[in-house]
Amino acid sequence: MTKTSGYKMAEKLLTTFDYGKVSKLSSGQTLREYEIVAIDKEIEIAEGIKFPGWTYNGTIPGPTFRCTEGDLLRFHFINQGSHPHSVHFHGIHPPEMDGLVPISPGQKFTYEFEAKPYGMQIYHCHVLPLARHIHKGLYGNFIIDPKTPREPALELNMVMNGFDLDLDGENDFYTVNGYAFAFMNYPIKVKKDQLVRIYLSNLTEFDLLNSFHLHANYFTYYPTGRNDNPSQFTDTIMQCQGERGILEMRFPYKGKYMFHAHVSEFAELGWMGFFEAE
Amino acid sequence: MTKTSGYKMAEKLLTTFDYGKVSKLSSGQTLREYEIVAIDKEIEIAEGIKFPGWTYNGTIPGPTFRCTEGDLLRFHFINQGSHPHSVHFHGIHPPEMDGLVPISPGQKFTYEFEAKPYGMQIYHCHVLPLARHIHKGLYGNFIIDPKTPREPALELNMVMNGFDLDLDGENDFYTVNGYAFAFMNYPIKVKKDQLVRIYLSNLTEFDLLNSFHLHANYFTYYPTGRNDNPSQFTDTIMQCQGERGILEMRFPYKGKYMFHAHVSEFAELGWMGFFEAE
Amino acid sequence: MTKTSGYKMAEKLLTTFDYGKVSKLSSGQTLREYEIVAIDKEIEIAEGIKFPGWTYNGTIPGPTFRCTEGDLLRFHFINQGSHPHSVHFHGIHPPEMDGLVPISPGQKFTYEFEAKPYGMQIYHCHVLPLARHIHKGLYGNFIIDPKTPREPALELNMVMNGFDLDLDGENDFYTVNGYAFAFMNYPIKVKKDQLVRIYLSNLTEFDLLNSFHLHANYFTYYPTGRNDNPSQFTDTIMQCQGERGILEMRFPYKGKYMFHAHVSEFAELGWMGFFEAE
Ligand SMILES: [Cu+2]
Ligand SMILES: [Cu+2]
Ligand SMILES: [Cu+2]
Ligand SMILES: [Cu+2]
Ligand SMILES: [Cu+2]
Ligand SMILES: [Cu+2]
Ligand code: NA
Ligand code: NA
Ligand code: NA
Ligand code: NA
Ligand code: NA
Ligand code: NA
Ligand SMILES: [Zn+2]
Ligand SMILES: [Zn+2]
Ligand SMILES: [Zn+2]
Ligand SMILES: [Zn+2]
Ligand SMILES: [Zn+2]
Ligand SMILES: [Zn+2]
Ligand SMILES: [Zn+2]
Ligand SMILES: [Zn+2]
Ligand SMILES: [Zn+2]
Repeated sequence: MTKTSGYKMAEKLLTTFDYGKVSKLSSGQTLREYEIVAIDKEIEIAEGIKFPGWTYNGTIPGPTFRCTEGDLLRFHFINQGSHPHSVHFHGIHPPEMDGLVPISPGQKFTYEFEAKPYGMQIYHCHVLPLARHIHKGLYGNFIIDPKTPREPALELNMVMNGFDLDLDGENDFYTVNGYAFAFMNYPIKVKKDQLVRIYLSNLTEFDLLNSFHLHANYFTYYPTGRNDNPSQFTDTIMQCQGERGILEMRFPYKGKYMFHAHVSEFAELGWMGFFEAE
Repeated sequence: MTKTSGYKMAEKLLTTFDYGKVSKLSSGQTLREYEIVAIDKEIEIAEGIKFPGWTYNGTIPGPTFRCTEGDLLRFHFINQGSHPHSVHFHGIHPPEMDGLVPISPGQKFTYEFEAKPYGMQIYHCHVLPLARHIHKGLYGNFIIDPKTPREPALELNMVMNGFDLDLDGENDFYTVNGYAFAFMNYPIKVKKDQLVRIYLSNLTEFDLLNSFHLHANYFTYYPTGRNDNPSQFTDTIMQCQGERGILEMRFPYKGKYMFHAHVSEFAELGWMGFFEAE
Repeated sequence: MTKTSGYKMAEKLLTTFDYGKVSKLSSGQTLREYEIVAIDKEIEIAEGIKFPGWTYNGTIPGPTFRCTEGDLLRFHFINQGSHPHSVHFHGIHPPEMDGLVPISPGQKFTYEFEAKPYGMQIYHCHVLPLARHIHKGLYGNFIIDPKTPREPALELNMVMNGFDLDLDGENDFYTVNGYAFAFMNYPIKVKKDQLVRIYLSNLTEFDLLNSFHLHANYFTYYPTGRNDNPSQFTDTIMQCQGERGILEMRFPYKGKYMFHAHVSEFAELGWMGFFEAE
């Protein structure tokens, strides 16, 4: 079995974090500059199935932007797509940087703000109609690391999403990182007892919630990715659209551990995969 | 742009709390007496759109009843509507005061109980069919303050709800405090850095959940309005029907901060607005 | 009014816990052996309404398996049904014991693992199509007690579920323990001020969530049944499919306390009942 382009995208998104172009300001503050280009692109969302996406930087979800609390961030946005778009970041920043203003095709805008608060954020287009601009693929994860680094771990990025091919307002495929049944044929490799940390968000459009269930194991869930939020030890959590959090786990036995939405329909339409502990 | 009657209702509900008629019992206990009248009334739920409501005291949602833990409460209910109704309060009280008994048109009933526990409650009609009696507008917030007062703040009352105009069992408008796009044209004015406290509940019928998202800022969320419940620092929370909680926030920059359901459909059908920090 | 067979099943499931056949290993470890038989059986799910169920041990939900953390468990599964089935347990165990492998009609399989972690688990068939195998009735609660026993209480087992009779992918009845309006005519008897502990899970198929609301009282909710998870004091909680938790409450007044889903549709289609405190 060869790895298809859609699978390769999902796999790459799993472990790729965009830290931007890094420099130091005279004040000592770290400056990070990122490029975000909105571009129409056909994406393979399941084996042989193409979706006419609106993307940030050519993937659905878009890149996972990453920085440390207190950094100065500049997101240089260029709209090369066919419709007006914007970038709305979750987090605390001046409200005029919140991405409400549509940027026309061919135009640019730089979003600049200090990274805060630490934890897990998301970003997405905020142009109306919202359901359409989000559903077409304009979203991604945005991680603000705490100044005191987290314990080293195998870190994985996951966005739960869906795709409506026939435009009836219902998703026909559900995925993590944009490819149905990603990680079924090629399980995510982890080491037995290794700390695994997942940055998980829900950007599924049309459905009121999505969920994450892990077989034969438990994880600790930190809502919004904050250590000072109430964490829980469980194997099943739900997120409404816009929610996100960090999952930490260790696999105590060798073998293949399934994970999937605990919504049977979503699992059967693509939102399932495996970890393999070695 | 003139303020319509529907907008004025939503705005008034935002900052109006009904403390009842207050007196002291010989025991020293505070007695609060409230009037609740069920009355059929047409309500403007969006600019120029009328909804044939069943209301408590003429508004949808009904009044926000407020008291302090330990007070003796008497709710004098009069049904002046066209159907049997009742008032079911959430909270701890003798079960015969729980509003299961329908009160016929023209009849009265006094619900009497001690206010407990402190936190955020709701109330709604409990006559069958439940979906119809709730959806028509018979619900509201009910705040039991702790004996030690909370820190002074700008306090706001918000009920998330929906309206089904064509009776197909799906909401055609979603609102906060009963008016679509309330606070879009007239943002809620707050002072920069001021403590803002929102008493938020979900009484939306037909949909399994509703959510609250704030732009460019975070809030602390206290489920059921209790300080001893696990709070979280985030910008997006969900509530199923009947859930409620307190949100506390400060706006660190001047400007306009959007807030809305992070369900695109609900936001586009009316459940969005602005805070403006000055 | 006579108690129908469906009501008797729901009532029996409320207080019956299957501790297995108990013996001691030479190591001192407790061994528990359980029989699980998948068998097609018609179940009365509402007065006079039969559902063509796929069951574990002849009831929907199946038996409530119970043990103590650290016990060695052997589940002897026999498929006497008409389709391949399996038993997938939530919890931490070797992944090859996770029930992904379908067991053909007439075949057997023994699931063996150590009971961990303490708290509330569930189990269900994991054969595809998942929605069909779960919806037909193959699920139940699985309690792992902590080594230090919980405080004595009246303990009740409750599974929230639904039944789709016309196979349109929507539930026509909603129940707790498999019988619509169970405990409406025969309230669950409790003693005033007695500690009541409910082991609650959501195995409802097709709907994204279910909820539990108690009238005139509050409860403490422990997600996943763990004391070290953040508990909350409230009267309304939601669970997505696969979530479960423990509710603890005392009834401070004599009388009848209604409980039901705070989803009006589910309540009206069968998911409501009463406690009666004496
Ligand atoms: Cu599982
Ligand atoms: Cu599973
Ligand atoms: Cu936002
Ligand atoms: Cu936004
Ligand atoms: Cu209630
Ligand atoms: Cu009620
Ligand atoms: Na579709
Ligand atoms: Na769907
Ligand atoms: Na409608
Ligand atoms: Na709707
Ligand atoms: Na059906
Ligand atoms: Na339904
Ligand atoms: Zn867009
Ligand atoms: Zn968002
Ligand atoms: Zn599974
Ligand atoms: Zn009514
Ligand atoms: Zn209620
Ligand atoms: Zn927004
Ligand atoms: Zn099965
Ligand atoms: Zn499960
Ligand atoms: Zn009720």
